[in-house]
Amino acid sequence: MSKYVIGLDYGTDSCRAIIADALSGKEISTAVKYYPRWKQGKYCDPKTNRYRQHPLDYIEVLEGCIREALSKAPAGIAENVTGMAFDTTGSTPVLIDEKGVPLALRPEFAENPNAMFVLWKDHTSIKEAAEVNELAKKWEIDYTAYEGGIYSSEWVWAKMLHILREDEQIRKAAYSWAEHCDWMPALITGNSKPETMPRSRCAAGHKAMWHASWDGLPSEEFLTALDPLLAGFRSRLYQETYPSNVKVGYLTSEWAERLGLTTNVAVAVGAFDCHMGAVGAQIKPGDFVRVIGTSTCDIMAVPYEEIGDKLIPGICGQVDGSVIPGMVGLEAGQSGFGDIYAWFKQVLEWPLKQLVTKSNLLDMETKEKLITEITDAIIPELTKEAEKVPVGESTLIATDWMNGRRTPDANQLLTGSICGLTLGSTAPLIFRALVEATAYGSKAIVDRFLENGVEIKEVIGIGGISLKSPFVMQTLSDVLGMPIKVAKTEQACAFGAAMFAAVAAGVYEKVEDAQDAMGQGFAFEYHPNGENHAIYMELYKKYQQIGKFTEN
Amino acid sequence: MSKYVIGLDYGTDSCRAIIADALSGKEISTAVKYYPRWKQGKYCDPKTNRYRQHPLDYIEVLEGCIREALSKAPAGIAENVTGMAFDTTGSTPVLIDEKGVPLALRPEFAENPNAMFVLWKDHTSIKEAAEVNELAKKWEIDYTAYEGGIYSSEWVWAKMLHILREDEQIRKAAYSWAEHCDWMPALITGNSKPETMPRSRCAAGHKAMWHASWDGLPSEEFLTALDPLLAGFRSRLYQETYPSNVKVGYLTSEWAERLGLTTNVAVAVGAFDCHMGAVGAQIKPGDFVRVIGTSTCDIMAVPYEEIGDKLIPGICGQVDGSVIPGMVGLEAGQSGFGDIYAWFKQVLEWPLKQLVTKSNLLDMETKEKLITEITDAIIPELTKEAEKVPVGESTLIATDWMNGRRTPDANQLLTGSICGLTLGSTAPLIFRALVEATAYGSKAIVDRFLENGVEIKEVIGIGGISLKSPFVMQTLSDVLGMPIKVAKTEQACAFGAAMFAAVAAGVYEKVEDAQDAMGQGFAFEYHPNGENHAIYMELYKKYQQIGKFTEN
Repeated sequence: MSKYVIGLDYGTDSCRAIIADALSGKEISTAVKYYPRWKQGKYCDPKTNRYRQHPLDYIEVLEGCIREALSKAPAGIAENVTGMAFDTTGSTPVLIDEKGVPLALRPEFAENPNAMFVLWKDHTSIKEAAEVNELAKKWEIDYTAYEGGIYSSEWVWAKMLHILREDEQIRKAAYSWAEHCDWMPALITGNSKPETMPRSRCAAGHKAMWHASWDGLPSEEFLTALDPLLAGFRSRLYQETYPSNVKVGYLTSEWAERLGLTTNVAVAVGAFDCHMGAVGAQIKPGDFVRVIGTSTCDIMAVPYEEIGDKLIPGICGQVDGSVIPGMVGLEAGQSGFGDIYAWFKQVLEWPLKQLVTKSNLLDMETKEKLITEITDAIIPELTKEAEKVPVGESTLIATDWMNGRRTPDANQLLTGSICGLTLGSTAPLIFRALVEATAYGSKAIVDRFLENGVEIKEVIGIGGISLKSPFVMQTLSDVLGMPIKVAKTEQACAFGAAMFAAVAAGVYEKVEDAQDAMGQGFAFEYHPNGENHAIYMELYKKYQQIGKFTEN
Repeated sequence: MSKYVIGLDYGTDSCRAIIADALSGKEISTAVKYYPRWKQGKYCDPKTNRYRQHPLDYIEVLEGCIREALSKAPAGIAENVTGMAFDTTGSTPVLIDEKGVPLALRPEFAENPNAMFVLWKDHTSIKEAAEVNELAKKWEIDYTAYEGGIYSSEWVWAKMLHILREDEQIRKAAYSWAEHCDWMPALITGNSKPETMPRSRCAAGHKAMWHASWDGLPSEEFLTALDPLLAGFRSRLYQETYPSNVKVGYLTSEWAERLGLTTNVAVAVGAFDCHMGAVGAQIKPGDFVRVIGTSTCDIMAVPYEEIGDKLIPGICGQVDGSVIPGMVGLEAGQSGFGDIYAWFKQVLEWPLKQLVTKSNLLDMETKEKLITEITDAIIPELTKEAEKVPVGESTLIATDWMNGRRTPDANQLLTGSICGLTLGSTAPLIFRALVEATAYGSKAIVDRFLENGVEIKEVIGIGGISLKSPFVMQTLSDVLGMPIKVAKTEQACAFGAAMFAAVAAGVYEKVEDAQDAMGQGFAFEYHPNGENHAIYMELYKKYQQIGKFTEN
């Protein structure tokens, strides 16, 4: 009798579910749902970099995705689903009450952004992150040691402290907090009591400065020294964290019914999208796996025997078991990648959205159609024109820190630059410079690994941009001077979740076995052009100079 | 009996003629004509910064403008026109034959850009300008002493040498050269023999390193050391240069007929648009007059008794008699001002021009109308939105060297930058940063004058932007911390030419008398906001830092 598993991948804008055959890995059906409130721009303020997501968005897309995927699947599948796993963006935490309910699910906080999940790219907590870093450097234990020595404003303690300080009503109601990837399994398995909710190794572990060597979370003394507002919080959190081969529990009967499944579905501990994505893209030691979307998450899994206790400075994570249980997961990434292209697209769309809408020449319907048609065509057309420009012909050099810099050496205060502008700098030339800038940002990360003796045998790309933009991928290959393989599936994260679901369901003992059986293989391979690489190495020096200047 | 004069102002894109009452200054009529070939983008290559104009463009608009202005004037005016003067952009030279005919007027060179006028903003001669500078620094006489020590690629020797090197056919046919503002009066008075064509003090003087103290143009030894290709050229040029109160001659009967005038029209020595514009805007000692258009020309006129032989470093000109005969004209300016806004507009137009044209949703006529409507609205709408942003709120800081830097300290190799970019940097915020950048560039020039003891009593703005953009002018006033008066007439350059025409015709002895009688007064005055000025002074430091970085 066949067994099926469901992988759920919660991205920045949408959730996708995949139902896969647990033995062959064959995709049975998929579904994608956009977060309805988020899509309307609710609870966000790009000017102050505030990005919040409502728990109801997460619940509604969960039901929507699974019901739709099941409806597309042949009869008899639902009864034989035996495992489920979640990956989410992160650190995306929320303040919860004594029962583990996110505060925005209470009527009085239903519209309060501070009661919602704080999305990874929310940068409202820059000050709090700086305070964590300052205190950690003075403390007897450097709790940031495994985060490359720099705590990020994208992470949970900074975010939670910021809200506790800012919002007195929320402060009074907040009992504990949970990461998005932990709350989802907790919710549907009835394990949401804060103190016993199973927490994930990277999200609730690493991002919260949890480490086995110092007995879990930072000490009560450290946290109250950071701010007395945090007093007592530690005792309402957790002692242990788990990798995703561990089972949280089984679907409650309520959730089995809501989702159209049975109570025989084992649910795995959740994890961040990039970690499950790396697994879904068949990561093995020596692979540098990049989830390339709005930002990048760059993942390596190194056997403990190879890396030991050696710390790589300035990367954002080094976590035992975060990717493959039993190996050390190394995590880096760029705070902005596709988001930088999207930003430029938005700049170019301005006349359309601001002025075409006001024109009396067209009726409303034609306007809307025209705007959709043109905005959809902007990136493809920019790509077509930018591709024609020989490497090194343009005077433009940009940096890629429009959303701060995650690695190497996190600094969310950094901003982007475009230098070398002339009156002949056209939109496609600027786009090309932005693509090159994101590739230079990638090179800075690769170099950091290499300089610290981490061997990179191959680069694997996953995520929308790897499959959609040969231009970006070729530029990346040329800049890195390395070949890049692109995972065949568009849904590597959801597939990785499905692999962990299969392990949680007992189909496989180890996730490596699930990778071998369920892996989807690779679609393309890009090879670097040596001549272009040589030119890029000269331009990269300029990128580094601009970077150094804007940092100071 | 009334007397009338005609001022002709040849700008970058168009020529305008004004017929004025020589006694009252009253405007009788005006006409504007765009250069037909230039408008089609002919002979130009923005990628290589090549900008050429065909002599037929100049001839056709001369006839067109004068005939149209006369047709709009009451009967009896044409017979009583007694003076005419030209101002043009510059340095805008052309290679000419033995008879003073621009080579592009010969059939074999009719389509050769090297046989045409090389527009001020043509930057193909950067290498040649660098060679002039290098040689001048080694030579016993520093021929660049009166150009702030730096010869510009926008000037005649660099441009002519570049073409002589590049184009063998042209080299064989070239006998001498002429500036646009000298060729126009020469043409219509029959004085175009190269050796005797009356040459202007600033265009043919200063821009060609002519100075009375070293007996005119640089020595034959210097020129041949620069390049043996220049051997003999000096003897086919000129010994003397003249200010614009001097008369070149009278209209030939052929040209009197072509223009619908009489042979009693005295034609003055031509000059650059900014110099005549400053006169038209009633410049007097202590005034810092700015012609603000695609670029800026900044002009002061200082009595010789005040400045003596003191040189102001890094400004682009210091010329006895270039503005007001008998005073020392000081010249500075920004290589890009309105051109920088136009560049950004062009970037924003890209989706419209590239994609709307391809859409099947609209018919051709609607597309054209829509594109025109939207592109015309871009700058006004950007202005409206940018104006709402409080000073200092945006993180963006730009520099204004997208077209190189004319002053202080000319360097055409410089490029522009936009720093401080975030994912929230919208089109209006970028526009605002560009406006601020052009104001910072203005402040750098003002500071250079002040540091060198040149007193600035008031700032006067003329040119399109001064009258059209209160936002730009207020920003400029806030950044400079100085009030700015804006000349009432849109045609200060043409009015200045009319004043010189009246002097050439003998109506006035001195141009100051013509200014008093014919001046048009001022339309507005902008006053600096002290609070904004204080913020801008902090931001200006960042502008200087970015500038210093990109220079090195």
